[in-house]
Amino acid sequence: MRRVSQFLAAKGKCVGFVPTMGALHEGHLSLIRKARQENDAVIVSVFVNPAQFSMGEDYDKYPRAIKNDAVLAEDAGCDILFHPSPEALYPDGFSCFVHTGRVSEVLCGISRPGHFTGVATICLKLFNIVMPHRVYMGRKDYQQAVIIKRMVRDLNINTDIKVLPTVRESSGLAMSSRNDYLSPRQRSFAATIYKSLKKAAMLIEEGEQNPDRIKAIIRGMLFGRSVAVEYIVIVRPDTLEEIKCIAGSVLIALAVRLGQTRLIDNILVNKR
Amino acid sequence: MRRVSQFLAAKGKCVGFVPTMGALHEGHLSLIRKARQENDAVIVSVFVNPAQFSMGEDYDKYPRAIKNDAVLAEDAGCDILFHPSPEALYPDGFSCFVHTGRVSEVLCGISRPGHFTGVATICLKLFNIVMPHRVYMGRKDYQQAVIIKRMVRDLNINTDIKVLPTVRESSGLAMSSRNDYLSPRQRSFAATIYKSLKKAAMLIEEGEQNPDRIKAIIRGMLFGRSVAVEYIVIVRPDTLEEIKCIAGSVLIALAVRLGQTRLIDNILVNKR
Repeated sequence: MRRVSQFLAAKGKCVGFVPTMGALHEGHLSLIRKARQENDAVIVSVFVNPAQFSMGEDYDKYPRAIKNDAVLAEDAGCDILFHPSPEALYPDGFSCFVHTGRVSEVLCGISRPGHFTGVATICLKLFNIVMPHRVYMGRKDYQQAVIIKRMVRDLNINTDIKVLPTVRESSGLAMSSRNDYLSPRQRSFAATIYKSLKKAAMLIEEGEQNPDRIKAIIRGMLFGRSVAVEYIVIVRPDTLEEIKCIAGSVLIALAVRLGQTRLIDNILVNKR
Repeated sequence: MRRVSQFLAAKGKCVGFVPTMGALHEGHLSLIRKARQENDAVIVSVFVNPAQFSMGEDYDKYPRAIKNDAVLAEDAGCDILFHPSPEALYPDGFSCFVHTGRVSEVLCGISRPGHFTGVATICLKLFNIVMPHRVYMGRKDYQQAVIIKRMVRDLNINTDIKVLPTVRESSGLAMSSRNDYLSPRQRSFAATIYKSLKKAAMLIEEGEQNPDRIKAIIRGMLFGRSVAVEYIVIVRPDTLEEIKCIAGSVLIALAVRLGQTRLIDNILVNKR
């Protein structure tokens, strides 16, 4: 892979990169298509990164579908699919990790300690191997994008992080490889997640400034069905700091569990 | 600096890089001369990195001599001197650090917690800015070189770390910018440090296999003069793990304090 990257660099080619864990869906494909439009070469990685899963999480059962992924990626405009083994990326004695500080410790970082350290570390490794000019990520994983942008700034990484809109099913449910875990009943309920976020956005646009009232309304819409709310927060979009009074741009983000399946979603609200 | 690096990369030039904290001495200059021999372009950074000093250490009084450094570096073959400000490298909200694990926690890592995190982080930042093909470091800072090599491997950094022999004063004292702190009397005593390491190496070559006996001899040679021994260790050169019985290659490393001044030195012994 590095030899290919160096060849592309020597030819002066602009490289677009889409890092994924595979089980590609329309969200990933939208990133690949955008990368295709903006670059000379498009590289997609498929790597289920063990370092970002904790004990008891779904590393082993995370969906893997490399043959189908290869077809989908190529159709969307991918030139090179990079599919390394865990042993190649984490050799014996591996011990270096990127810690990204407070932005990693809030929201999903609370229930998934170490998760974003694993994410930042694998992203840095992949960026060093692929040497992309532009990296494409989805807004569904908003905190991840904030963290990777922070890492790119703080560690002087020479790439541009592009964050594209969340792609949704017709029900409004954010596309996610983990949606495959849902039963038909759960999947149908899961549409409520985005409905609650849209409702909250509407209330803010209509003038509601109290984050607690907004959160209560979301919680109410999600209540009483077999769902456990992990968090609902209203934060500053750049720092992920919780806000006391809604003004300017805010991010509403949440994580819920439907049975064993953990889903996240978010909405950006620009209040004028 | 990045624009220069990208220009050199586009021209296909091979870049040699010598990261320093300035106050250049013959040790640094030997690295610059070697970089000159092996590369098309030689870049030297001078940056007293606040992130690798703890509270109460000598960050403020660390010797700074940029004008003299510029002359010395140029004479030794440096093309470009990179001298960034702390504010440029650590902007507001900076929060990303590279943690390199156990190799950072032994030897100097015990009395300087966080030191090697600061070293690894600044090295990664500088490598990303300078994009060197080869990086030159001195063997005097042996643990630092082990850590940076580990980081380069684990984070897939595309550069080659060259570790060159320690340059010594005629007395045997390892060259160090911190030698400037020594009084004439301390400087004269400091020659004992390397004498004790050479004596230890000789005993190992003659057949001594017990690390405790070797350490006791070094300690004896250093004892009773105004010196505090911080550590004396005999370790595997690649992992820095302490060994019970001397066989094969070993590293003897030590740190001492002469008054306020902390000095380190080491010797590699290859026992056949």
